[in-house]
Amino acid sequence: MKIDILSLFPEMFEGVLTSSMLKKAVEKGKVEYNVINFRDFAEGKHKTVDDYPYGGGAGMVLKPQPVFDAVEKVTASSPSARPRVILLCPQGERYSQKKAEELSAEQHLIFICGHYEGYDERIREQLVTDEISIGDFVLTGGELGAMVITDSVVRLLPDVLGNENSPILDSFSSGLLEHPQYTRPAEFRGLKVPDVLLSGNHRLIDEWRDEKSLRRTWERRPDLLENYPLSERQRIWVEKWGKERDA
Amino acid sequence: MKIDILSLFPEMFEGVLTSSMLKKAVEKGKVEYNVINFRDFAEGKHKTVDDYPYGGGAGMVLKPQPVFDAVEKVTASSPSARPRVILLCPQGERYSQKKAEELSAEQHLIFICGHYEGYDERIREQLVTDEISIGDFVLTGGELGAMVITDSVVRLLPDVLGNENSPILDSFSSGLLEHPQYTRPAEFRGLKVPDVLLSGNHRLIDEWRDEKSLRRTWERRPDLLENYPLSERQRIWVEKWGKERDA
Repeated sequence: MKIDILSLFPEMFEGVLTSSMLKKAVEKGKVEYNVINFRDFAEGKHKTVDDYPYGGGAGMVLKPQPVFDAVEKVTASSPSARPRVILLCPQGERYSQKKAEELSAEQHLIFICGHYEGYDERIREQLVTDEISIGDFVLTGGELGAMVITDSVVRLLPDVLGNENSPILDSFSSGLLEHPQYTRPAEFRGLKVPDVLLSGNHRLIDEWRDEKSLRRTWERRPDLLENYPLSERQRIWVEKWGKERDA
Repeated sequence: MKIDILSLFPEMFEGVLTSSMLKKAVEKGKVEYNVINFRDFAEGKHKTVDDYPYGGGAGMVLKPQPVFDAVEKVTASSPSARPRVILLCPQGERYSQKKAEELSAEQHLIFICGHYEGYDERIREQLVTDEISIGDFVLTGGELGAMVITDSVVRLLPDVLGNENSPILDSFSSGLLEHPQYTRPAEFRGLKVPDVLLSGNHRLIDEWRDEKSLRRTWERRPDLLENYPLSERQRIWVEKWGKERDA
């Protein structure tokens, strides 16, 4: 996979793209990152990338020309007939694991990161295939969003993660939040690991984990249960918890 | 504000914390960041920070001791009587602008970032004041979440952002998504800026923007309209769009 990132702050990416899994994925030949300062594409001796909004108002707006030229440059040598051009913005669709899986099947992703500024609408209309927001909170620019999407997508590429690293954080694959985890020591500052986990009885351990996982989801993220197919045992638990809560 | 970040990959933070707004906030004396490798707090000559989960299963679990000792070290010199200790994890509450505003009133934030591993439950129960997830997608570690929260919180601190930089991205403050923006040139590759924005008639411009903003929200994020107080004009638009859609 090829990932091109257009940003006015390329130095922001240095630590993240050269550490841990994202670095290993490059070493394994699974991905290539290019961070491009699109100010280099701006015309004129001042290399201006933004200007005042038509119609007035606060803030600046990214001009179409530097972004069009930068996207066309990286598209010209694309390994894909139709690269995905992703605009990070609050107006975009909410990012999800499903979208990460969809993007991980692509050969070429191009991210456009604004910073402080808005985007001239012609960028959205003509260049962009996907507008994405990572959540309902305001960030200074699109850079952190591009890093988040890059991390979540690259870890899904075949052979990037060893099997041993993958499952534990994957709360969303099972559809439920993860159950509590414990490791040694069995007692730390008077705080004990639940007996069942030390019992060696795997039927009881599985049942305990299933119940805790469901309970945590029921308490914290009931929305995840709306389309979740409860087993008979799980249905009985949920009914009991509901009665306890309403009592 | 003081921000301590506990991570096994401190080098990931270098680019982000030393660029743009997050750097300027330090220069203005509004915030101080410390990134701490909690492996330095691990006991034993191998400095082990994780171990197998009790009860079996895939993945590793962060041991309580190094995290407890690191948190206690940074808490001992806290400017706050009760610093917020934030655990980044998929099981946490979904991050939002409201939470960013809440955290921006604090004097001391401590982030605990796991990486690949789960957390021993005793960390959650004894140390952590807030479990946060930035969204329903899987990341390799908590580091990007800590950066996202740091960016969204620090930009809200008084005098960090100049007024001219703030409003344009703040889609969530008005409750609606931002209307389209345009800047010069008025025609770019045959693509024209809407006439109304060049008209100089500010009543018409405001109406156009109000309609586009509402329309974009209605199409993309109808959930934001559930509790939004529509004006009479807006109510008529929504009714008309609904009829057009159903026709």
